[in-house]
Amino acid sequence: MTILVTGGAGYIGSHTVLALLEAGHDVVVMDNLSNASEESLRRVAELTGRTVPFHRVDLTDPEGLDRLFSSHSFDSVIHFAGLKAVGESAEIPLEYYYRNVAGTINLLRAMDAHGVRSIVFSSSATVYGDNHHAPFVEKMEMGANNPYGRTKEQIEDILTDLGASDERWSIALLRYFNPVGAHESGRIGEDPSGIPNNLMPFIAQVAVGRREKLMIFGNDYPTVDGTGIRDYIHVVDLAAGHVAALNYLTAHGGVHRWNLGAGTGSSVLQVLNAFSRAVGRELPYEFAPRRPGDIAESYADASAALADLGWSTTKTLDQMCEDHWRWQKNNPNGYAD
Amino acid sequence: MTILVTGGAGYIGSHTVLALLEAGHDVVVMDNLSNASEESLRRVAELTGRTVPFHRVDLTDPEGLDRLFSSHSFDSVIHFAGLKAVGESAEIPLEYYYRNVAGTINLLRAMDAHGVRSIVFSSSATVYGDNHHAPFVEKMEMGANNPYGRTKEQIEDILTDLGASDERWSIALLRYFNPVGAHESGRIGEDPSGIPNNLMPFIAQVAVGRREKLMIFGNDYPTVDGTGIRDYIHVVDLAAGHVAALNYLTAHGGVHRWNLGAGTGSSVLQVLNAFSRAVGRELPYEFAPRRPGDIAESYADASAALADLGWSTTKTLDQMCEDHWRWQKNNPNGYAD
Repeated sequence: MTILVTGGAGYIGSHTVLALLEAGHDVVVMDNLSNASEESLRRVAELTGRTVPFHRVDLTDPEGLDRLFSSHSFDSVIHFAGLKAVGESAEIPLEYYYRNVAGTINLLRAMDAHGVRSIVFSSSATVYGDNHHAPFVEKMEMGANNPYGRTKEQIEDILTDLGASDERWSIALLRYFNPVGAHESGRIGEDPSGIPNNLMPFIAQVAVGRREKLMIFGNDYPTVDGTGIRDYIHVVDLAAGHVAALNYLTAHGGVHRWNLGAGTGSSVLQVLNAFSRAVGRELPYEFAPRRPGDIAESYADASAALADLGWSTTKTLDQMCEDHWRWQKNNPNGYAD
Repeated sequence: MTILVTGGAGYIGSHTVLALLEAGHDVVVMDNLSNASEESLRRVAELTGRTVPFHRVDLTDPEGLDRLFSSHSFDSVIHFAGLKAVGESAEIPLEYYYRNVAGTINLLRAMDAHGVRSIVFSSSATVYGDNHHAPFVEKMEMGANNPYGRTKEQIEDILTDLGASDERWSIALLRYFNPVGAHESGRIGEDPSGIPNNLMPFIAQVAVGRREKLMIFGNDYPTVDGTGIRDYIHVVDLAAGHVAALNYLTAHGGVHRWNLGAGTGSSVLQVLNAFSRAVGRELPYEFAPRRPGDIAESYADASAALADLGWSTTKTLDQMCEDHWRWQKNNPNGYAD
């Protein structure tokens, strides 16, 4: 099959491109490079021996999308492209709705116009919001508590309505928990611009000397050690989940939502300790007050993906930290090196 | 003040344009005329002695919006434009999300770029969905049960996040119940294209001979006579609610949501009987099974609009029917006559 991967030069995108190539698919990448580097695709080519056609196209450009869909014949789309910083989304929500929601509507219109009606969408555990207790199950009502999460929720609703209206559409909504780690080669990984929003990239930058110390927001949660619990998933496992979802859609069609997580959580201190083991020394940290909107525990009920896709995570927290550290150590400034 | 009214040639739009002119405002109308006629604005001009600048612009055309905002200096926008048929929205949801949601995002971006940060938005009681019991109160969680309602819900969320991010924005979300009736002159009114989706226009077309009989969907609801209860609001009262909301925003700013309804409901048979009185003869009807998604009772808690805006409805069901019938009788084929 030929798969269009939007946002395919980004962190999860590039790992999924690699997994698709290894599974024997043809892949075309579109990305606006606003938070990604073409260097990631050069390295995927180096790892696989296959070059990936790249198009610099923005979701907000309907003509560019039309040209892209005219220039290739796609069987399916894996749609990663979008803004993803929770804090920023509260500051510039209109930009988030414009790029994520209106951008996805443009993509779906282009797909429909060109007869491509299969899509795997990057949703997020953020859609569960703060009204439920972990483990989160797919049937729970959505209720994101920030604009970023609401863009994911709106796109899920749009895709669900689209699938209900026209059975030619095949749709997978994948709710990611906390993707971390990197390909074991250390050649591709997460390269956040500015101050990292997520825990492991921040720890990695502390370890490599780019940040002074880790701030831990909240040590008085009702958890094993007082710090927040999240469900970390190795990006290589996550990429495999996309290939599995794509295969399922090809065989069965329909509209589906699956959590992609380990089904178990780790605390901030547990992650920090595991990362310290990978690095081989203690890393500096400091406790700070809880952040508004953060919940104590978030982890998946991962049983639906196992039952439907035969997919589950395979990598341990130590492997996540070792692989993340190998990438960071070899590429202290990400792809800018 | 100078007010841009999107969808200003439509049913509620044209009545609101009239009310704004009567309140001494300058008005500019944009409309794509997909479900409206410029004739409505000619008649508003005839009733008021003032012509209204009209621009045929579509919400999905960002360049057209930019030209419009460059050619006038607006103080506020009243935003009616959008698709509005519940049944159709389940058939072509992508078109609804494209025109309503992505279209509104384009409008908000144009407003922001031109420094116009005051908006009164046409929301709907549909956002309450079927998880609550009437009377519906603004603080209830939204949960629309059809794509049309979800477009309203998504736009409410976008506007709420926008207002929270930037206090320069003033935002009123008006949740209409069931607008009916027409201006007492009989010169402007509702002119649905195709088969009417709503009760009173359907009855009116039966009365004028364009439809054979009224189908009443469900006569076994737990209501006074078994037929569904809705909160009917005279369109002239509704238009006055928009002027009141605009005045409130100008004085106070902020983000607000108000039900615009009578606070009391009428059954389908009560409406049919009132319309029959207005026409002066019995009108044919037939019972049919309930429609999926319909609820037994929907009516507003109208106390917030009274407390905040000093606004409440003034017209009786008989007046609604008399005014609606005058319009229909004088214009049996709407503006096409």
